Amino acid sequence: MIILKLGGSILTNKDLQTSEVNYTNLNRLSAEIKEAISNKNSNKTLDDGLIIIHGAGSYGHPPAKKYKIGESFDISEYPEKRIGFSKTQNCVKRLNTIICSNFIDHGIPCVSLQASSFITTKNKRIETFNLDIIKKYLKEGFIPVIYGDVVIDSELKIAVLSGDQILQFIAKKLKSEEVILGTDVDGVFNKNPKRYDNAEIIPNLSSLNQIEEFDLTTNVDVTGGMIGKIKELLELAELGIESKIINANKPKIVLNALENKETRGTVIKITK
Amino acid sequence: MIILKLGGSILTNKDLQTSEVNYTNLNRLSAEIKEAISNKNSNKTLDDGLIIIHGAGSYGHPPAKKYKIGESFDISEYPEKRIGFSKTQNCVKRLNTIICSNFIDHGIPCVSLQASSFITTKNKRIETFNLDIIKKYLKEGFIPVIYGDVVIDSELKIAVLSGDQILQFIAKKLKSEEVILGTDVDGVFNKNPKRYDNAEIIPNLSSLNQIEEFDLTTNVDVTGGMIGKIKELLELAELGIESKIINANKPKIVLNALENKETRGTVIKITK
Repeated sequence: MIILKLGGSILTNKDLQTSEVNYTNLNRLSAEIKEAISNKNSNKTLDDGLIIIHGAGSYGHPPAKKYKIGESFDISEYPEKRIGFSKTQNCVKRLNTIICSNFIDHGIPCVSLQASSFITTKNKRIETFNLDIIKKYLKEGFIPVIYGDVVIDSELKIAVLSGDQILQFIAKKLKSEEVILGTDVDGVFNKNPKRYDNAEIIPNLSSLNQIEEFDLTTNVDVTGGMIGKIKELLELAELGIESKIINANKPKIVLNALENKETRGTVIKITK
Repeated sequence: MIILKLGGSILTNKDLQTSEVNYTNLNRLSAEIKEAISNKNSNKTLDDGLIIIHGAGSYGHPPAKKYKIGESFDISEYPEKRIGFSKTQNCVKRLNTIICSNFIDHGIPCVSLQASSFITTKNKRIETFNLDIIKKYLKEGFIPVIYGDVVIDSELKIAVLSGDQILQFIAKKLKSEEVILGTDVDGVFNKNPKRYDNAEIIPNLSSLNQIEEFDLTTNVDVTGGMIGKIKELLELAELGIESKIINANKPKIVLNALENKETRGTVIKITK
């Protein structure tokens, strides 16, 4: 089974304060996913199922930031916080509806799963998450689509749950064979590729030490950014789950990754 | 705790093939709900919490009908059925997003719960439904909003789950004090009020026998229609849970019902 994460920066214009879908990317990615699943014989692992996780991008981050969801607060602020939770949940659901609509138009039998309907956290880490429903949808041949959301938190009352954390949790529990992380950069570099022309991609990453001396890419978001992603993926690597950070902004890269063909990117893997 | 059901025929134009929200009703109902929850001292039961359930209306019924979701099918038809499931799920989610957006604009701290994310059925009846998440949201002062949806069915593979069945299940399990059913008629009549001028409302209903000799209203929908609703409500009445069928098309009726004031309608109750 493969888990494909599509970052919020790929599907929306994250720099904007207004919510805007990047339809050029969305249409292209829908077509690539459809092509990969229609051509299943090319990759046995894909034949075992696909789960798609997407970020919240410019739909989720502005309200989550505005209402400081996930930060501790005084009880007097709760009425305002609740509305912030409601707004953020509704915004990411709206983005998910647009994405699923595009998937469906391309013939992808997707089923949306709303994290806030069945997942809770404790101090921002997943506390309850029953995976049975995901297994059932996979068994019936659906492609579950899960996304970054706001959730009930047993310590903080409410929190943001990132797509990256959902990805890591599912990959571990369902023992995913492959994880593909579609971002807006080619992979992990030794320097910030947006600032340095001589930045070089790191094709294989097996520990944090390897990058500690380097600059990281400038992808900053309220759910952790690139360093957070790498840490979560290294934890997966420890469990034998290989992941690949690729550029989903460029054509055919996601398709090639889904079909297990050679692709530019950073493979995160620990060879024991 | 009160459960308020808003029928699909109230929130959408069910006669249309195209999906269209009835914003006149939606805006008015949002304002009435906001007024009732802001004025909590008027009704102790409302102070204990409110759950809103809405139907699928012209968003959910056309695709569910077109793809015959819930009917048995040959495995060769499954690819088509899956797409029908995906489409129906996405359409009802779109309606829910519009409704929640309106609630939020009116200052209602709602949280959407997607049935297909955590409920499954067996031969169209609820098989798994963990209510913990609803309890948690109620405890935190949110107003859960649940809606008719498509779900995984352990016998039929996929099925439609009506808002009415969700309502009955939650009312039973959470021992709701009151159930309010907002429909497009004043209540249950002794004849079809749309055809007979001399039709009279039945103010109190305590058994099916009472209406077997009468015509029923002409509210037909793929999830059961009025007779189905009445049966589910009579089952609740057997457990001591009182419900009221009211007209949510008319101003102040929902507000009065929420504030426990005298309202025209049919009370379904069994006095033992």
